[in-house]
Amino acid sequence: MTAYNDLERRFARLAAIGDAIGILGWDCQTMMPDGAATERAAATATLAGLSHELLTDPRLGDLLAEAEAESSSLDPWQRANFHEMRRAWVHATAVPADLVEASSRASSAAEMIWRTARPANDFTALRPALAEVLALQRQIGAAKAEVLGCSPYEALVDHYEPGARTAMIDPLFNDLADFLPDFLGRVLDRQATQPQPEPPVGPFPIAAQRALGERLMRQIGFDFNRGRLDVSLHPFCGGATNDIRLTTRYDEADFTRALMGVLHETGHALYEQNRPAPWLAQPVGSARGMAIHESQSLIIEMQAARSHPFMEYLAPLLRETFGGTGPAWSAANLHRLYTRVEPGFIRVDADEVTYPAHVILRYRLEKSMIEGDLTLGDLPGAWAEGMKALLGIVPPDDRRGCLQDIHWPSGGWGYFSTYTLGAAIAAQMFDAASRETQDLLPLLAQGDFTPLIGWLRTNIHCKGSLLSTTELLREATGRPLDPTIYRRHLERRYLEAEG
Amino acid sequence: MTAYNDLERRFARLAAIGDAIGILGWDCQTMMPDGAATERAAATATLAGLSHELLTDPRLGDLLAEAEAESSSLDPWQRANFHEMRRAWVHATAVPADLVEASSRASSAAEMIWRTARPANDFTALRPALAEVLALQRQIGAAKAEVLGCSPYEALVDHYEPGARTAMIDPLFNDLADFLPDFLGRVLDRQATQPQPEPPVGPFPIAAQRALGERLMRQIGFDFNRGRLDVSLHPFCGGATNDIRLTTRYDEADFTRALMGVLHETGHALYEQNRPAPWLAQPVGSARGMAIHESQSLIIEMQAARSHPFMEYLAPLLRETFGGTGPAWSAANLHRLYTRVEPGFIRVDADEVTYPAHVILRYRLEKSMIEGDLTLGDLPGAWAEGMKALLGIVPPDDRRGCLQDIHWPSGGWGYFSTYTLGAAIAAQMFDAASRETQDLLPLLAQGDFTPLIGWLRTNIHCKGSLLSTTELLREATGRPLDPTIYRRHLERRYLEAEG
Repeated sequence: MTAYNDLERRFARLAAIGDAIGILGWDCQTMMPDGAATERAAATATLAGLSHELLTDPRLGDLLAEAEAESSSLDPWQRANFHEMRRAWVHATAVPADLVEASSRASSAAEMIWRTARPANDFTALRPALAEVLALQRQIGAAKAEVLGCSPYEALVDHYEPGARTAMIDPLFNDLADFLPDFLGRVLDRQATQPQPEPPVGPFPIAAQRALGERLMRQIGFDFNRGRLDVSLHPFCGGATNDIRLTTRYDEADFTRALMGVLHETGHALYEQNRPAPWLAQPVGSARGMAIHESQSLIIEMQAARSHPFMEYLAPLLRETFGGTGPAWSAANLHRLYTRVEPGFIRVDADEVTYPAHVILRYRLEKSMIEGDLTLGDLPGAWAEGMKALLGIVPPDDRRGCLQDIHWPSGGWGYFSTYTLGAAIAAQMFDAASRETQDLLPLLAQGDFTPLIGWLRTNIHCKGSLLSTTELLREATGRPLDPTIYRRHLERRYLEAEG
Repeated sequence: MTAYNDLERRFARLAAIGDAIGILGWDCQTMMPDGAATERAAATATLAGLSHELLTDPRLGDLLAEAEAESSSLDPWQRANFHEMRRAWVHATAVPADLVEASSRASSAAEMIWRTARPANDFTALRPALAEVLALQRQIGAAKAEVLGCSPYEALVDHYEPGARTAMIDPLFNDLADFLPDFLGRVLDRQATQPQPEPPVGPFPIAAQRALGERLMRQIGFDFNRGRLDVSLHPFCGGATNDIRLTTRYDEADFTRALMGVLHETGHALYEQNRPAPWLAQPVGSARGMAIHESQSLIIEMQAARSHPFMEYLAPLLRETFGGTGPAWSAANLHRLYTRVEPGFIRVDADEVTYPAHVILRYRLEKSMIEGDLTLGDLPGAWAEGMKALLGIVPPDDRRGCLQDIHWPSGGWGYFSTYTLGAAIAAQMFDAASRETQDLLPLLAQGDFTPLIGWLRTNIHCKGSLLSTTELLREATGRPLDPTIYRRHLERRYLEAEG
């Protein structure tokens, strides 16, 4: 057995443990009785610990060094796989075990406090625990930065979006931050002159909502022989290899959110279901990173499903499903409803236009905090200032401000930027796919996603982690990340009534 | 940290992995889409392999030797825990890794062939693969026998029922084998003179069956905050610590089987839910063995639920649940239905009287095969002969003969005896509980299981693996396993119309 083959064997084992953790995580959110929480936490932590032990086994480090010498005999997929193995190993070994453990403990503690501090609007109660998390995240960033050759903040981002650097993110975010405030004003002005969207009136039976969601999932290409749709409080796309578990949350009074949520998660799911078959258990067969992953959900949700053509298809289907009649059920009204813009305090409730502002704010704040330029004491003030500048509103309290997200207390520093990177990438991919395939938009108006999914499968899904995010985007769309395409999408949809 | 404490830490880790495997197993039978089978097998095998590696880690063997020296400082629970740790270690280390792997591969292969050979009635097709399984089971038995100081067949049984020896099983089974043929004849004669049971006519909506099952589970003491009831093709009680997952299979045309199945699995579940809380993650906190486990399901199903008093409670509840009227819904008819005796070829369809005959046959045959006194070539003939002697019938083909059970192809040699050991133990426990508690039977007639469950909790469930099966039974009932009590139960119910 060559060193490389031995590495493949070890990483297949890690993939199998990852699959087990994925199913346990899904079960925890969908099926598990409350009384099992302690034991489930122990089971998951044990598997995560074993996985970390296998990845940081000194023998694995030796094998990486030995395989380096064999690399001339590897084909491009194997070489990329070897590169991803090393990447995983670098992230796992860069941080001393006691720091990993301290950080995991601190995040669990802070998350627990956050669960009561947020509804109580009590930032002071969270601050000491959050300070501990921040201090440890800074140490982790510093430890990884040394090995990765980047800044500590970039090292944290790199965990979610490999290769992402502020030199790539800052220009995009600065461009958008310049563009958005004025654009938002124009969108709101125009919206005020248009008919107000009228929400269809329910009740909308859950069984009908589920059947509709499953029908659309199937139509878009979701394979129910390798996945499921269930219910959880917080919708997600999880599960395991060839076993993709989507969830949603139904509201009998409003079908619109669950429906669009299902389409969003289906975008994530297709990426997972279409990963390259021979490499499913290897690092190179994994999704490229969280920015590309988010682009796959947003290309379905934002680019395709909220478009005029798809609304033409959806409107009669909805009328048939729910027995709806009247103007609220027209394609034009549904499009207005699904593209309504309204600045608000809460990120997860934000529309397509204001969402990037929420992300840019958090990105800038967390970067400053990791870099030591902003303290937690100054966070609420900086938050208010940033919201004012980007969205023109100031949250009345921390509950609707810096306490709203789980990311910081739970240790997810460096994640936020991937949401808006994903949105911009989705716009650029949809633009390329529309130009390169026949009848993408007319077929969407018939509920037919074939050209879009075919393009994504060929250009994105089947590539796994063969290329870097930058290479992948350039090969798929012919250019690097270009904010003008994203801006152009927003302008066409929200000012020109197209798209 | 003492050696003993280190062992506790290691066994808690093993318990956590066991919990993960338990949830994955439940998911596989209830939720998993078909296309995930390969990856799920890999995930489960990986966790089982890691578990085996942790248990056979040479350091663990050293710790056992070191803890031996500390044993005077241990309390009785710790000492029993240490004993169970050693037992697990002996079973894991007695067999060389390559034999474990070969056996696991051979069983998987034979099980696959069995799945088509059984419906095709083709024993010849299964024979080579089954011969391989048998040869490896004999090797495993021989390897363990040396360490355990017993015969190879006993070593296989010991895996399921710790401490069980043929010197304890043979007298019971010989006693029953002498008793049953004549007894069965008398039961059938008597039954012929009685009114024939009349099955209630459906349909019986699944939602109503489920609600009734859950109501009875709750009433018996199942804690839904630490468990669930779902549907699977083959009903079982599985899951994890504080997360007991029962399953059943509904038939709209016949509620009787699913209902009794739910009560049976509830017996298993209560044993698991009532294990001693401070020891849940340690070997001493586990259920004692499969014979005691089976006794817990059978004491609910056979001793309590099929009794006259419980039928008095159940009949009106069934009438209310399904809107039933007429003589089929009387307690007397339901009791006749639930105690109907009819010799048949299939073990899993057998009634309380003929079931032991199926078990004794298999026990004797597998013992002979492991001991080398019976070859697979002679198995069909020996099967026919045994059925004739015990039940007076001869199966017309192997599909209804030696091909019917999954146990042998899947490597479960040594398991069968626990079914009938469990039945005899259940009778003995019920007899003791009835004498030691107030109003056990009158309260059953009100659907109140409190005295029975209280007795089981105190005498069995809370003991975990503190005592051996023999000690546990003696402490709980005041005597060793006594076949006369089991026979007496059968006589009273099936000849004297009592119980």
